[in-house]
Amino acid sequence: MLKSILFLFLFVFGLNLSAQDKKEETAFFIKSIFENTMESGECYSWLQELCTQAGPRLSGSVSYDQAANLMAEKLKQIGCDTVWLQPTYVKKWTRGEKEEAKIIFGDKEKSSVPLRTLALGNSPGTPITGLRAQVIEVKSLDELDSIGNQVKGKIVFFNRPMPAGTLKSFRAYGATVDQRSRGAGVASKYGAIAVVVRSMTQNIDDVPHTGVTVFYPERGEKLIPAFAISTKGANLLSLLLKKESLRLFLKSNCQLDQDSTLAYNVIGEVRGIGKSNKIIAVGGHLDSWDVAQGAHDDGAGCVQSMQVLSTLKMLGYPPRNTIRCVLFSNEENGLAGAKAYKKWSDENGEQHIAAIEADAGGFTPRGFTCEGDTSIFRKYFKLVQAKMDYLEPYDLYLKPGGSGADIGILKSQKGILMGLSVDSQRYFDYHHTERDRFEAVHHRELRYGAAALTSMVYLLDGINWESP
Amino acid sequence: MLKSILFLFLFVFGLNLSAQDKKEETAFFIKSIFENTMESGECYSWLQELCTQAGPRLSGSVSYDQAANLMAEKLKQIGCDTVWLQPTYVKKWTRGEKEEAKIIFGDKEKSSVPLRTLALGNSPGTPITGLRAQVIEVKSLDELDSIGNQVKGKIVFFNRPMPAGTLKSFRAYGATVDQRSRGAGVASKYGAIAVVVRSMTQNIDDVPHTGVTVFYPERGEKLIPAFAISTKGANLLSLLLKKESLRLFLKSNCQLDQDSTLAYNVIGEVRGIGKSNKIIAVGGHLDSWDVAQGAHDDGAGCVQSMQVLSTLKMLGYPPRNTIRCVLFSNEENGLAGAKAYKKWSDENGEQHIAAIEADAGGFTPRGFTCEGDTSIFRKYFKLVQAKMDYLEPYDLYLKPGGSGADIGILKSQKGILMGLSVDSQRYFDYHHTERDRFEAVHHRELRYGAAALTSMVYLLDGINWESP
Repeated sequence: MLKSILFLFLFVFGLNLSAQDKKEETAFFIKSIFENTMESGECYSWLQELCTQAGPRLSGSVSYDQAANLMAEKLKQIGCDTVWLQPTYVKKWTRGEKEEAKIIFGDKEKSSVPLRTLALGNSPGTPITGLRAQVIEVKSLDELDSIGNQVKGKIVFFNRPMPAGTLKSFRAYGATVDQRSRGAGVASKYGAIAVVVRSMTQNIDDVPHTGVTVFYPERGEKLIPAFAISTKGANLLSLLLKKESLRLFLKSNCQLDQDSTLAYNVIGEVRGIGKSNKIIAVGGHLDSWDVAQGAHDDGAGCVQSMQVLSTLKMLGYPPRNTIRCVLFSNEENGLAGAKAYKKWSDENGEQHIAAIEADAGGFTPRGFTCEGDTSIFRKYFKLVQAKMDYLEPYDLYLKPGGSGADIGILKSQKGILMGLSVDSQRYFDYHHTERDRFEAVHHRELRYGAAALTSMVYLLDGINWESP
Repeated sequence: MLKSILFLFLFVFGLNLSAQDKKEETAFFIKSIFENTMESGECYSWLQELCTQAGPRLSGSVSYDQAANLMAEKLKQIGCDTVWLQPTYVKKWTRGEKEEAKIIFGDKEKSSVPLRTLALGNSPGTPITGLRAQVIEVKSLDELDSIGNQVKGKIVFFNRPMPAGTLKSFRAYGATVDQRSRGAGVASKYGAIAVVVRSMTQNIDDVPHTGVTVFYPERGEKLIPAFAISTKGANLLSLLLKKESLRLFLKSNCQLDQDSTLAYNVIGEVRGIGKSNKIIAVGGHLDSWDVAQGAHDDGAGCVQSMQVLSTLKMLGYPPRNTIRCVLFSNEENGLAGAKAYKKWSDENGEQHIAAIEADAGGFTPRGFTCEGDTSIFRKYFKLVQAKMDYLEPYDLYLKPGGSGADIGILKSQKGILMGLSVDSQRYFDYHHTERDRFEAVHHRELRYGAAALTSMVYLLDGINWESP
């Protein structure tokens, strides 16, 4: 409370400060953000509640609703001016009973080797007795195109590894994830009856990584069963295929509802003292895969975004613009939350002068990447870059780059869009697996990221965006 | 092999390249360093061998000798021009039988509460039956000075926490470690019979952290028993002391040999094509505390330094200067290894134009801090800074700052001294505890650090230090 009054005092009377004094005040405020967040940020305990009380929470599930209510409650406790649940409609996908994958030896299935597997999100189930077919290995969609109808009636095995030599793990992911996201759809056009995909990780281990696969029926694609197998399993299968032709047995029980289910975006805001339609948003996605507690992906980004509001409130900061925390639904398998939010925001005549997404795991932050409509990007980038000296003591950079899956579509509102960039070396140990649990997040790394986000929001709020 | 020839070709014929071509060649070589190290760097498996085959290795111990031989063997396999063991003489300290600490309630010791504890390095043992005395809490050496002789015959309890609000963990450590390193010595002058010290970590848990304590008998200090207790234990003791006066029971069986024991520095080098006395050294310390596998502290720094030579050899790089990997003995409790190395180097008329120490844990690197004799520092800093664009894609900074405990004394040779700076948020989960095991190091983070070191050594080797 004392602190709140102190800062309110500083800000109200700060209007007459000299340029040098203002710089010192800004640096001091950022120091306070870091000290307070590192010492007593609540984000870590919120994450624990989210992961253990709501748990895995694919949008449309009961636990997703629990998570939404839990987080809304926290946002109210923080002291937001408004907290609300925004309806979005999602296609609910369920995994059903545990899936199975086996390598079958011989025509009469005399022996088999089980493969650790997870069905891919949005994929359909196999027949109830499973399916058996010859498996053909390819390294890429291009290779699949080159062999085309040879895969008819067969199972396609996509086995291009995420390159270990690529330092930045998200870049390695980006270079290989097409196999998972589009492999099944493309293979179906050539008559394949199922696909298995090497898991998206640079590790060699026995942990399968799920993730969404996307079908375009309007392009003639059929929904066929799709599975991720572990990297060890993929290596084994590939090795065996060098010696002989093999069949796989696959069984899954997934279901994708055709009806839409309600799943809420959770939104809290602190209103600015300036124009009411100018927004600075910070957010993550509240949904997670059904096999994971979603601690890194993306409970971390959610609780860090909530921490932004909490710390600014606690320090008594009166924002110029409306600062809004948005927890999106359905990032993992449809982006319905992002679309609903954008539509609503447009209809209300809002402009997001800035939005930041935190969806790369709760690891030590390295900085921010940013993008924006070409009409404003160079100018806005320079305005933010001019503030980066304040973040130098905290080792945070600003670079052009992507923002996030949920906020990317806000580009038409002509603000600057940012992604919190974090150390990515451990991310694919956890991503879309049962290992993505609360214990995998470090309290100090999570808080460091939250302090970075808060500082950036504070700096963005201090920029005169109309300046020539 | 193909690669070796390729790079040799590039380097031999590279002498006539244009400035732009040279820049591209340098960038390409650094890219190769990162790709090769991340994909197939051996440092991670070397670390596993060091941690599990030699294990805990305080200098003077049998396992230290095993570690020295093991690492020397690896340096030979790498293909160093010379590998040798350099004798250094250390005072061997042993913990002996497991130590004990208890809070005693009442005069007749009707009840007691055990505290998790580790004796501090270089401290003497208690009497064989232990010791019992009243405990007095202080927060600092200054507070101890202010109460002075009141501690006579008593146990001093140092309880100033490592501040959680301080983002950079080493800074928080630096602000509090005087209690551990000097508390016992200073308390002995006021007649205290023992000390207990709150463990050096920002966590609140039940893990005691050992570390060295230093006595100066020449200043009238006596060697008295000294213990670290866990932060939870410290909080409990402090809470109880607010209500009543308490005694502690302390028992330890430590011994510090008066005779010197042989403990080798391990050195390997690849000779340069230029003057033979110009050295670029990279190193860490091979000794670890007796309770720890010393994975982060500092097996990581050792194997990363070895990786530098291995990668440069593998890529066929012919260095201008002699590139040397030095694994120091006795960093933890005496620095005898560093002193012996410096003396030998001076006697041989060498100049370390640059030296880098890696001793902050095997975490993701953030950059390099550097220092040097004032007569050369500004010039040398600028020469290195001019190369930092090459490391920008790998998110590595260069800042003025400390180098390392082992190489700091090389300053008189008037080269630039650097420390590999890494993400420090998790370091004090492990530092000087039984938790500092191989499993605590991530393969990609370790390799990232090794690639950073290799790239810096390569850049340093390319600098014309004589330039005006």
